[in-house]
Amino acid sequence: MRIAFLLLLLQLGAAAQQRRARDYGVPFDGSPGPYNAITDVAGVTVGQTTLISGDGPLVKGKGPIRTGVTAILPRGTTFAPCFANWYTLNGNGDMTGTHWITESGFLETPILITNTGNVGTVRDAAWQWMDQHHYYTPFYHDYWYAYPVVAETYDGIFNDINGQHVHKDHVFRALDSARSGPVDEGGVGGGTGMMCYGFKGGIGTASRVLDKRAGGYTVGVLVQCNHGSRNQLTIAGVPVGKALQDTLPFTMDKQPLGLASTPPREETGSIIVVLATDAPLLPGQLKRLAQRIPLGVTRTGGIGGNGSGDIFIVFSTANPHAFSNTDNENVTTIPNEHINALFTATIEATEEAIVNALFAGKTLTGINGNTVYGMPKEAVLRILKQYNRLNK
Amino acid sequence: MRIAFLLLLLQLGAAAQQRRARDYGVPFDGSPGPYNAITDVAGVTVGQTTLISGDGPLVKGKGPIRTGVTAILPRGTTFAPCFANWYTLNGNGDMTGTHWITESGFLETPILITNTGNVGTVRDAAWQWMDQHHYYTPFYHDYWYAYPVVAETYDGIFNDINGQHVHKDHVFRALDSARSGPVDEGGVGGGTGMMCYGFKGGIGTASRVLDKRAGGYTVGVLVQCNHGSRNQLTIAGVPVGKALQDTLPFTMDKQPLGLASTPPREETGSIIVVLATDAPLLPGQLKRLAQRIPLGVTRTGGIGGNGSGDIFIVFSTANPHAFSNTDNENVTTIPNEHINALFTATIEATEEAIVNALFAGKTLTGINGNTVYGMPKEAVLRILKQYNRLNK
Amino acid sequence: MRIAFLLLLLQLGAAAQQRRARDYGVPFDGSPGPYNAITDVAGVTVGQTTLISGDGPLVKGKGPIRTGVTAILPRGTTFAPCFANWYTLNGNGDMTGTHWITESGFLETPILITNTGNVGTVRDAAWQWMDQHHYYTPFYHDYWYAYPVVAETYDGIFNDINGQHVHKDHVFRALDSARSGPVDEGGVGGGTGMMCYGFKGGIGTASRVLDKRAGGYTVGVLVQCNHGSRNQLTIAGVPVGKALQDTLPFTMDKQPLGLASTPPREETGSIIVVLATDAPLLPGQLKRLAQRIPLGVTRTGGIGGNGSGDIFIVFSTANPHAFSNTDNENVTTIPNEHINALFTATIEATEEAIVNALFAGKTLTGINGNTVYGMPKEAVLRILKQYNRLNK
Amino acid sequence: MRIAFLLLLLQLGAAAQQRRARDYGVPFDGSPGPYNAITDVAGVTVGQTTLISGDGPLVKGKGPIRTGVTAILPRGTTFAPCFANWYTLNGNGDMTGTHWITESGFLETPILITNTGNVGTVRDAAWQWMDQHHYYTPFYHDYWYAYPVVAETYDGIFNDINGQHVHKDHVFRALDSARSGPVDEGGVGGGTGMMCYGFKGGIGTASRVLDKRAGGYTVGVLVQCNHGSRNQLTIAGVPVGKALQDTLPFTMDKQPLGLASTPPREETGSIIVVLATDAPLLPGQLKRLAQRIPLGVTRTGGIGGNGSGDIFIVFSTANPHAFSNTDNENVTTIPNEHINALFTATIEATEEAIVNALFAGKTLTGINGNTVYGMPKEAVLRILKQYNRLNK
Repeated sequence: MRIAFLLLLLQLGAAAQQRRARDYGVPFDGSPGPYNAITDVAGVTVGQTTLISGDGPLVKGKGPIRTGVTAILPRGTTFAPCFANWYTLNGNGDMTGTHWITESGFLETPILITNTGNVGTVRDAAWQWMDQHHYYTPFYHDYWYAYPVVAETYDGIFNDINGQHVHKDHVFRALDSARSGPVDEGGVGGGTGMMCYGFKGGIGTASRVLDKRAGGYTVGVLVQCNHGSRNQLTIAGVPVGKALQDTLPFTMDKQPLGLASTPPREETGSIIVVLATDAPLLPGQLKRLAQRIPLGVTRTGGIGGNGSGDIFIVFSTANPHAFSNTDNENVTTIPNEHINALFTATIEATEEAIVNALFAGKTLTGINGNTVYGMPKEAVLRILKQYNRLNK
Repeated sequence: MRIAFLLLLLQLGAAAQQRRARDYGVPFDGSPGPYNAITDVAGVTVGQTTLISGDGPLVKGKGPIRTGVTAILPRGTTFAPCFANWYTLNGNGDMTGTHWITESGFLETPILITNTGNVGTVRDAAWQWMDQHHYYTPFYHDYWYAYPVVAETYDGIFNDINGQHVHKDHVFRALDSARSGPVDEGGVGGGTGMMCYGFKGGIGTASRVLDKRAGGYTVGVLVQCNHGSRNQLTIAGVPVGKALQDTLPFTMDKQPLGLASTPPREETGSIIVVLATDAPLLPGQLKRLAQRIPLGVTRTGGIGGNGSGDIFIVFSTANPHAFSNTDNENVTTIPNEHINALFTATIEATEEAIVNALFAGKTLTGINGNTVYGMPKEAVLRILKQYNRLNK
Repeated sequence: MRIAFLLLLLQLGAAAQQRRARDYGVPFDGSPGPYNAITDVAGVTVGQTTLISGDGPLVKGKGPIRTGVTAILPRGTTFAPCFANWYTLNGNGDMTGTHWITESGFLETPILITNTGNVGTVRDAAWQWMDQHHYYTPFYHDYWYAYPVVAETYDGIFNDINGQHVHKDHVFRALDSARSGPVDEGGVGGGTGMMCYGFKGGIGTASRVLDKRAGGYTVGVLVQCNHGSRNQLTIAGVPVGKALQDTLPFTMDKQPLGLASTPPREETGSIIVVLATDAPLLPGQLKRLAQRIPLGVTRTGGIGGNGSGDIFIVFSTANPHAFSNTDNENVTTIPNEHINALFTATIEATEEAIVNALFAGKTLTGINGNTVYGMPKEAVLRILKQYNRLNK
Repeated sequence: MRIAFLLLLLQLGAAAQQRRARDYGVPFDGSPGPYNAITDVAGVTVGQTTLISGDGPLVKGKGPIRTGVTAILPRGTTFAPCFANWYTLNGNGDMTGTHWITESGFLETPILITNTGNVGTVRDAAWQWMDQHHYYTPFYHDYWYAYPVVAETYDGIFNDINGQHVHKDHVFRALDSARSGPVDEGGVGGGTGMMCYGFKGGIGTASRVLDKRAGGYTVGVLVQCNHGSRNQLTIAGVPVGKALQDTLPFTMDKQPLGLASTPPREETGSIIVVLATDAPLLPGQLKRLAQRIPLGVTRTGGIGGNGSGDIFIVFSTANPHAFSNTDNENVTTIPNEHINALFTATIEATEEAIVNALFAGKTLTGINGNTVYGMPKEAVLRILKQYNRLNK
């Protein structure tokens, strides 16, 4: 008990050291949970493996390597499928395992996020991990099977993506290291080589806790963001991207890529969103939450561009006994009449998670010297101030 | 109590008088309920208004009239929304009210089936009926609203469809006369002017009761069938339509319409299927049942042709308290692992309901002398015998 | 020709008299067409019937009446089905005719928008109008049928909705009066009794014309908006609703309904969006546009609340010969790689159409003295100025 | 030319040696193409790698191995994306890459089918193969990416599935060996360890050629079938499975698994269906074909059971220039009014492909001595004869 408490303090300490968007005075609606992270939903754990090595020109199969994998375990190492659902704003991407979620209403595996070229390796490694950890329902014993959920965004601008450098042990490491508490943001895990609105993107997270009268439920969001053009970037309703113009433009193959020159290159990205809640929602209700995630994305400027893989998965940790073998199993629900607060929390937490990813982003140079800059925080805060939208 | 018992006897008597497909020895899998009807699902009531008047050439707005309306009330006059869902095999048709079913997971109105040109009148009449009967949740009181579910198939080959002869009072009569017990089949209610596989179609119904070990649940189906070409007709796996060729071909505007001459005209039809069950299925599970209805339709030969509006609605009478105002409301479910018996029952009951409609069909002459013949039962039974597929 | 030119001048004159949001300096991205209306898409016509009569307490069947109907004809009175598709953000509403659009990829009827209680009457009246105008493909001649598209939002707070006061002749009048050119906004047509973010809502419209390099296509939007809570209202990224608080709160049954007291009542509304474009998009591509409409809605603050019927229909006027009887019919498309500009135009035009509806809204008193105020323009502009978001 | 002709003769010779269902007199509707295979659609090629080694008890990671991979290339080694779509009858399975097909309307990769545990390896190998063969659009050059389509059914009853024995070189071999002409059926490629209706299943194929007046198009189907319980098996409408009862029952872990004892084990399977056509269908129309595939499946007895992954992908080889970079690209379509013949062909070819897989199935023993028998052809033909359903 005491050690757990010390750990909590240490974790809170680590989190405190990292100033996040709201610490700078960026205004957000709603009330976050203690970590302002997906892990505020009790039971949810996150683990990440970051792979950075090599420099200089791309040599396929060698590097440079700028990639990784992020694992979200709905109930930690406990196997108890969750009601789940998903929605796609723009499907230029992949998420394996969704057919069975649609059909059954359940998520039965961890969720992993990586780069586009490594989806397969990560998927089969997750299968191995589930097999070794007996992470499946006992009544399958020897003849179990699963459809691991693996999503991706494209990091081939910085990473030797055709080298497929994420290996089985990296996946195991992410899964085995999954913890509750604060979550690393920015260029880590699956987000290592990602770019968002022309700045360094990657992993971001946020949460909302509903008012007691609205049920007191928690909604937690984790994004791997790699989407958007510079001129779209919007923070707290302020057209920050337009104001920044091509300050610190992303450079590729030695050429600065400004807004005018080659905008398409800026929009090859995607955003994966994972949303967890402890609200007892049925699968159909979870789909409704998933359909609100685009509303949070667009509040930061995104449009679900054609080059974007915007796939969103939502699960509920309530009803741990729903996946059973028993007729007339009881599950609890909330009435549709009470769902609006969860819609609002979904939109707010999605918006903040993306902004958090941008605030955590640090300049990254990858293959061929391609460079994306961390978003210049002071410049952004100055713009927000001009529009009277800074809390401090 | 005693009167109820007498009524039951009378109803059973009425049912007994009408020989149905299985009474003639047509083989079907599975075990039907006492009425072999949708009303075997406790609480479900059915009422029908049949409108037949006039003869001779079509005079728009006058007649001849060959139409009607069929009403299905999920819990009789009791308002308690049911978990529901729907699926479309071929959407050349309409069913109002489905957007809210998708969103909420609930059916909150009666289901009405009529002709294509009268969907609107029937819909607004159902609204009036709900208003007058306070058929809505009390917490809406003065400001209630609803999206009545009204489906249709096309009877314009026999009926002055542009005359829109189904009026508000006909709808009220169908709703007010809804009863449990046996259900009239063939050219009655919404099925009055319908044609199926080139023979007289219309209303058909059937049910299945699951084995106790499979939960003992009941699945009831009601169809309004107006679909299919003669050569597709299949009964008990036997290609009956091909064997019958153009025996008693449907005639239109004085011309016999054989298989070769104008096949498209035979395929202007549609099939609406309403399925009720007392199995405690969640909305997502009900969709799975709806997706199995095409498998029952095709066992009678249907292909979901382009001219067909094949729209299927499914609801569960379990969980009467699911639609509530209370958080953490308990609802019961059955595990996906136990759902196969319900899939099988869905397919079997759909198949038998269509065959029942055909066996109940009687020759009908409508506008311009257009005539569709009742399926010749003896010829059909003879063919089944040739293929060793008759029980008697 | 000369008369047409004079008419154009007169129409432009009428439009000029009405100052719209951008005339006040509200900033919007993108370039509108000449009327900044759905009618900027060549061929699209709009007609509206507004019904206002009576005052005082509600007497069901008598009034007061505050309702109407708005008709959009994709190609005026010319029958030539359009590629179309639709999407629902929140389905607490109805739009008839969508099953066949999904199946066929075509819109074959006018689109009508009215109140929730009158969907049926309007639908059957549209059928009559189509019949009388031979608005259907000739190869159906005597045996045509259609699934008229009718959508609704709820005006029962101001209108005797159970009285169902929209009649056939009102529908014919809207259809027959449909014109290109400027479109009346605010409390007119189907929008007569509507409320949006706690202010007077109703009909709004806007358009965007793409850059020549992006194809030069036009996107036009018409909304019937009845959605949102006061505190959600956002204009040009500025939290206007929060700043206004309960200024001019909507009053109901004699009681002012502030933010705290009975918020649910403010969120009974809905928004129907009709989008037209001359870009040659296939049905699947039109669905992608429909899925971006929520992004425009949410930029004004909407969340797709549970009480909201947010149903969006999108059609293309290109490819007038696509609906044909001929194999190997040629249709033109644009590559997915070029669709982003259309996504952006969809979002921008939707956002502006809603703001236009608010700027056109005038205070309305309906049944039982229930009153909704027109949005106070000066107060709103003052707030935008505080946030440095006013062009003038 | 001459060599090609010799090859054709050899191929026809090989095909001739293998008697298929219709050669035995099993009646099917419709007219097949020259190979009665998916390869009758011009350009489609198929390659398969079969892995069989080891015997005796399961040693995880060692074997025995009974698995493989089947590759379908829509246009052989030519890269030119095809209009495509998909549908799921029961989603207890996985098919990667479907999100982008939904969004874009295009299939841009080969289709591969393997076992459930190897989906990832096969997917990442396909990525490598595409990279090495420059199987992507030139305008992506260095920064291309793809979402390879990989589907699966479960062979863990016979194969060391957790050993994940399908490796990159096996995938390359299948892709590199893809040919037009006859296709091996039964226990080959991805179908090596599959079971269907309690008999040996696996790969089956069939085709239909439409009448000239219906456009003369070809529809080709390839199935990997692993679904169904013995008692469901239906051939030509005849209840063959019920007649056979537990003749040659599948045995598992030394125990014969009869109908009564452990029926669930018989229904762990799935069916993947790949359908190709040269008919110029738009993506929305291809979805309609995909939705008819369940109608073919159920004519052999399948119900889309809960344990089944019934995922169907459909593509058109027409319009090779549809995936382009050019506005106003012309594509050809056929009218919806002419689509019924394609629906019928879809159902017929699916039905025959499954029966072909069963007729080609040979007894297989795998891990722990688990044994599934090849369907006893003579017994089946005798039963068909009893029901007067044998052509010879």
